[in-house]
Amino acid sequence: MAQPRCRSVLITGCSRGIGLGLVRGLAAADPSPEVVFATCRYPDKAQELQQLSKQYSNIKLLQLDVVCENSIKKVVKEVEEIVGDKGLNCLINNAGINVLASLEDVTAETMLTIYETNTVAQLMVTKAFLPLLRKAAQLSTGMGCHRAAIINMSSLAASMQLVQANEMFLKVYPYRIAKTALNMITRCLAADLKSDGILCISLHPGWVQTDMGGNMAPLQVQEAIPGILSVLDRLGEKENGSFLDWQGETLPW
Amino acid sequence: MAQPRCRSVLITGCSRGIGLGLVRGLAAADPSPEVVFATCRYPDKAQELQQLSKQYSNIKLLQLDVVCENSIKKVVKEVEEIVGDKGLNCLINNAGINVLASLEDVTAETMLTIYETNTVAQLMVTKAFLPLLRKAAQLSTGMGCHRAAIINMSSLAASMQLVQANEMFLKVYPYRIAKTALNMITRCLAADLKSDGILCISLHPGWVQTDMGGNMAPLQVQEAIPGILSVLDRLGEKENGSFLDWQGETLPW
Ligand SMILES: NC(=O)c1ccc[n+]([C@@H]2O[C@H](COP(=O)([O-])OP(=O)(O)OC[C@H]3O[C@@H](n4cnc5c(N)ncnc54)[C@H](OP(=O)(O)O)[C@@H]3O)[C@@H](O)[C@H]2O)c1
Ligand SMILES: NC(=O)c1ccc[n+]([C@@H]2O[C@H](COP(=O)([O-])OP(=O)(O)OC[C@H]3O[C@@H](n4cnc5c(N)ncnc54)[C@H](OP(=O)(O)O)[C@@H]3O)[C@@H](O)[C@H]2O)c1
Repeated sequence: MAQPRCRSVLITGCSRGIGLGLVRGLAAADPSPEVVFATCRYPDKAQELQQLSKQYSNIKLLQLDVVCENSIKKVVKEVEEIVGDKGLNCLINNAGINVLASLEDVTAETMLTIYETNTVAQLMVTKAFLPLLRKAAQLSTGMGCHRAAIINMSSLAASMQLVQANEMFLKVYPYRIAKTALNMITRCLAADLKSDGILCISLHPGWVQTDMGGNMAPLQVQEAIPGILSVLDRLGEKENGSFLDWQGETLPW
Repeated sequence: MAQPRCRSVLITGCSRGIGLGLVRGLAAADPSPEVVFATCRYPDKAQELQQLSKQYSNIKLLQLDVVCENSIKKVVKEVEEIVGDKGLNCLINNAGINVLASLEDVTAETMLTIYETNTVAQLMVTKAFLPLLRKAAQLSTGMGCHRAAIINMSSLAASMQLVQANEMFLKVYPYRIAKTALNMITRCLAADLKSDGILCISLHPGWVQTDMGGNMAPLQVQEAIPGILSVLDRLGEKENGSFLDWQGETLPW
């Protein structure tokens, strides 16, 4: 029997890169969600996303700066008006930033800025959407994106176990430390929201050619997206609180 | 053959609790370090520490607010004047704060404040003492507190693996997330500084009766300290980058 359908997805940071790729992949999927909330901080500047949203009627483009409390409040209201009592099935916390900062370069300011965008914002956006995620969860059973799920875009660089094997990441102290903290948010939410029927995972999207990933990355966005979507499709109770990569492999904390 | 001796130790947050206990335990140890730099943010208010430093000639009381850049710079100079070319053998990043904040209560502000004191400060204090730790490392071989070591005071609450088993900690989101991030700092420093001969670990001091631990805690400060000191004594290359508790048991990330 096919999984019941995921009606609504919201993605942060859709102006470019993996976020934009996810919007395209989801909108074109068969079956596709009734509505894909594609959010970004500067919709006016997001040319490609605008074009895409004209192409697919199920894309709803909304403004969201994840570090801005008012912007979060506003977008929750807008989503609520559209989904109503059906709630929101899937929240993908994808927006993120990075800077080069080795041990020598790293400053307190960079540590705080990166934590704010890559860790704190994910928790605040999630908190704001909890009422809508809970609504969706009440209408279904089991666990997964068909019911209610929070996907935190993490990184291989966040794995404490794999630090020795990935010393190249030593050049991005603030980023990897903040993503490890994001993984802990995943663990806490998975434990806290289990009884509500809301699933939460951390996902490493692969090393992908984007502004952040750079052009040394082995994967194109269009190669990574089908993998990511199929991982999301197959999520169930067993995966709650886990750290998966774009091919569904479990990564160590 | 006995380990070569640890000449100098610096501890942050020594006005009370575990920090104060460590100062007392180290100053009275046999053999004890030549100098124990007992730092705290308000020396004038730290009555017990003042008394202790009068009792033991190897205690040097210094002012250090770990979130204040100037205060860090000043204390490094003061320590340098005392240790000279021998450098600093052991830095114990002990200062920390906590607040009750469940998923419902947690705010962006609390997340950032706790991260600043419990995570960012540890990295900044460590960076500032690196030249002195490197000096000490050059005078010795092997790995451990006799040579050069960074001890990050973490917590059982930071273990991602053990989140399900310790759901009581779900009431301290900002604290546990920041301590997990601190564990990642430990991992990065352990990898980055290995070639300098500087060891780094995360340490869970036990659940101890202090202002932070509360009076439900099963351990008194004077019970935990001997355990912690014996763990520090036995540290070697094998322990570099690990997460240990006060009895020397390895905790999962
Ligand atoms: N690419 C990789 O190899 C790789 C590997 C591991 C993990 N990741 C993670 O995957 C996610 C997407 O990365 P990417 O490669 O697609 O990066 P990217 O190409 O740099 O895109 C980042 C996106 O995040 C948005 N963003 C940044 N700050 C924001 C804010 N305050 N509010 C709203 N949106 C904001 C950006 O919007 P603007 O256009 O407005 O700046 C942009 O849309 C990130 O979380 C990243 O850490 C990527
Ligand atoms: N007690 C436990 O059960 C337990 C369990 C796991 C981990 N830990 C960890 O062990 C460490 C010590 O905890 P504790 O139980 O001794 O806590 P505590 O009794 O509350 O003492 C905390 C100490 O940190 C200092 N501090 C806070 N902010 C500071 C700053 N900005 N600059 C300098 N010092 C600062 C405090 O100084 P002031 O007097 O100036 O405020 C105080 O000396 C912490 O890192 C804590 O997270 C404790």
